[in-house]
Amino acid sequence: MLKKSIEFFFEPRSVAVVGASEAPGKLSAVIMDSLLSSGFTGKVIPVNPKYSSVKGLKCFPSVSEIENGVDIAVYALPASLTLRALRDAESKIKGAIIVSGGFGEAGDAGKGLEREIKDIVRETGIRVIGPNCMGIFDAVSGLDTFFIPRTRIARPRRGSLSIISQSGSFAITAMDELASAGVGVARVVSYGNKTDVSETDCLRFLSEDPHTKAVAVYIEAIEDGRSFIEAATACASKKPVFAIKVGRRGAGSAAALSHTGAIAGNYEAYRAAFRKSGVMELDGYDEFIAACKAFGSAAEAKGPRVVIITDGGGMGVSIADACVEAGLEVPPLPEDLKEMVREGLPSYFSINNPIDLTGSVTDEMYADALDKTLSDDSFDIAIVAALWGPPGLTDELPALLSERAQGIKKPVLVCSPGGAFTRSKAELFIKCGFPVFQTPEAAVKAASILARRAPRRKG
Amino acid sequence: MLKKSIEFFFEPRSVAVVGASEAPGKLSAVIMDSLLSSGFTGKVIPVNPKYSSVKGLKCFPSVSEIENGVDIAVYALPASLTLRALRDAESKIKGAIIVSGGFGEAGDAGKGLEREIKDIVRETGIRVIGPNCMGIFDAVSGLDTFFIPRTRIARPRRGSLSIISQSGSFAITAMDELASAGVGVARVVSYGNKTDVSETDCLRFLSEDPHTKAVAVYIEAIEDGRSFIEAATACASKKPVFAIKVGRRGAGSAAALSHTGAIAGNYEAYRAAFRKSGVMELDGYDEFIAACKAFGSAAEAKGPRVVIITDGGGMGVSIADACVEAGLEVPPLPEDLKEMVREGLPSYFSINNPIDLTGSVTDEMYADALDKTLSDDSFDIAIVAALWGPPGLTDELPALLSERAQGIKKPVLVCSPGGAFTRSKAELFIKCGFPVFQTPEAAVKAASILARRAPRRKG
Repeated sequence: MLKKSIEFFFEPRSVAVVGASEAPGKLSAVIMDSLLSSGFTGKVIPVNPKYSSVKGLKCFPSVSEIENGVDIAVYALPASLTLRALRDAESKIKGAIIVSGGFGEAGDAGKGLEREIKDIVRETGIRVIGPNCMGIFDAVSGLDTFFIPRTRIARPRRGSLSIISQSGSFAITAMDELASAGVGVARVVSYGNKTDVSETDCLRFLSEDPHTKAVAVYIEAIEDGRSFIEAATACASKKPVFAIKVGRRGAGSAAALSHTGAIAGNYEAYRAAFRKSGVMELDGYDEFIAACKAFGSAAEAKGPRVVIITDGGGMGVSIADACVEAGLEVPPLPEDLKEMVREGLPSYFSINNPIDLTGSVTDEMYADALDKTLSDDSFDIAIVAALWGPPGLTDELPALLSERAQGIKKPVLVCSPGGAFTRSKAELFIKCGFPVFQTPEAAVKAASILARRAPRRKG
Repeated sequence: MLKKSIEFFFEPRSVAVVGASEAPGKLSAVIMDSLLSSGFTGKVIPVNPKYSSVKGLKCFPSVSEIENGVDIAVYALPASLTLRALRDAESKIKGAIIVSGGFGEAGDAGKGLEREIKDIVRETGIRVIGPNCMGIFDAVSGLDTFFIPRTRIARPRRGSLSIISQSGSFAITAMDELASAGVGVARVVSYGNKTDVSETDCLRFLSEDPHTKAVAVYIEAIEDGRSFIEAATACASKKPVFAIKVGRRGAGSAAALSHTGAIAGNYEAYRAAFRKSGVMELDGYDEFIAACKAFGSAAEAKGPRVVIITDGGGMGVSIADACVEAGLEVPPLPEDLKEMVREGLPSYFSINNPIDLTGSVTDEMYADALDKTLSDDSFDIAIVAALWGPPGLTDELPALLSERAQGIKKPVLVCSPGGAFTRSKAELFIKCGFPVFQTPEAAVKAASILARRAPRRKG
């Protein structure tokens, strides 16, 4: 039997919060606050036999007593109480998000509870996300069951990148980092122990989701390789899909087992599955974030040829090294282009690739060099490493670069290593919509993954 | 003829600034400001025929007219004027720092000027740093010829790490980043085109320098491999020496040539030279910074066995993967230690390695887990990845961890990925003296390089 699509989870008309409370620090209180302040337009219904109202809303003693039912119910109860509450609701809901821990990851008793959840799913056709998860953050509908307050973990703006993750902490850390990097998201799903909804269901949904233009996946273990490959292949044929598999070897593998009860399995089998389905594999958190920034806020790359523009010679050389080692190309400037770029610049500027505009650089020189090289057919991607020592660089630089790059649909990645002053300037680049990277390596990782998705990509 | 040691450059009694001026934006004005405000206790003597005083100090028309001579003269003049000024000073100075560009990196005319500088060095025995360099930032004496204002590029506090770099922009970017990471330095030297003073001279000096406990080297090209190996071997036998060689291959190699006129040469020969002399090679800027943080602010590691403590399971698994892939060991906790750590903790905590303290963590639980595992003989290094979602974590955590780790002379590396809230907490860790890393990969790079220097290191 093909299970029901999980689409209804993302734009529900009504959400019941089971165990709703106003007690500060309670997960359910955070979820209530989020739902009421995140722009979520659906109906929020608190459920708790102890209260008649929560946050000014009528509180029901149980989900079964909500007259017309609800689309989804969110459970933030102790594991031992969750099953009865779910049984009570089963005829009234389409789906449940169980954020509580204490299930399969906590030992045999918890595994028994998970088997019961699976029974309910099989018997009733309702869909379940979790347990031991964060649930859904949806920037399209405003649904937010991530139970960490926004004062601690910022939510990204609305964008076109979707993230699906077995690990809640990984997902929220990435979200927080993307929020501060100005990168938007569409749907974020943390499904934890995945008694029911898995990456396969999410990929099927995201494949068809018009709000999602790229998909990032964090995987500890996949149970049904065949379904995964099928769903991933379908999704990756339409939009970029990139994944990190953790618990690859040794200690990491053992740790994944205790984390979500997943058996991490043979890493080589995962790699083969990724290759087969066109999923781009990433090698760690750093590359995961770099890829999120790249596909979340850069244009698509048409190929692997990078032009590097900087005012710091040494940094330029480092970036060129990293590019070559990542399989990117750093071709020399064609002679006519070299002449064009050189025009009007002091003779001691080094107009090669990297282009070193030296400490005498001005905003206008940067903009000119970017415009001329990126307009040329010789390059697919620009990495701009603006070091902020030179006095000729001003706060106008990011907007000027943005203006000049606008018409050219090629990725411009900003590499901005340094301390406090530089970070304040990195904020200006972020405000202008550039993907900004703290290290040359991260910028090069982003360029490399964009190039892997390019039409004439190699390997 | 063995050249004079360059020691006098670092704690000079007097410094002449040739071309001194008060004109804002002039390199010489920045250098004057730095020398007068950086705590430098030597005498600062402006030299410029146009002025009778600069910044309230008597200004000399030329160095030759300074009665008792000076230890060093700093030249911030156009290339074309530098030679005559240096000739004029040659009998009055022990050494010169030429920060001006427009020499060998700018073409044949500049190469001719460099040959003349070499003639002066040979004829007079004075030592020359540069041209096309930043010169010296010395946190011990306060000497600072780096001509980027402190408002743009922060200077690190005084510490025990020294950095020598052919590239000025690389050196200042690293300094700026280390300043914001709370890592101190002793001596920083940028020698640019190295007509005279090279990494070899610097390594000889730093080898004997009691203020330097570790040495970071940025290399584009080495001219005299035999001297380098000799100096590096001597230095690395006394203290950790780590290096990045840029211009390794292809475009990077060509770029190095145009940057400081260096022929980057056969990368394999460099690798062999590093291995032979006990210099640890780093693979990029990110690893360079990680190593600077590690040797600049962590204890020495006695081996490669890492314990990972976190409240985010997925992050823990990622770190474990990265450790295993970097050749570090992530051994399981011995049973008796596991029991000790588990004591008093909720049953659903995952007490393995990584230790996952979950969202129910408190400051005290972190401190306990760190204290117990690091006191045990089973581990050499701790990586603490505190994710700041859990409400039980407070601003007291960094000080508490610092207090508990104090007696145990093992490295504790803090991994702190995330957004604005997390970064404000990372500042607290920095204030407590911890080396803090934005990504798991950077923390693991630091652990790995500490382990490479460990007594029972492998490979």
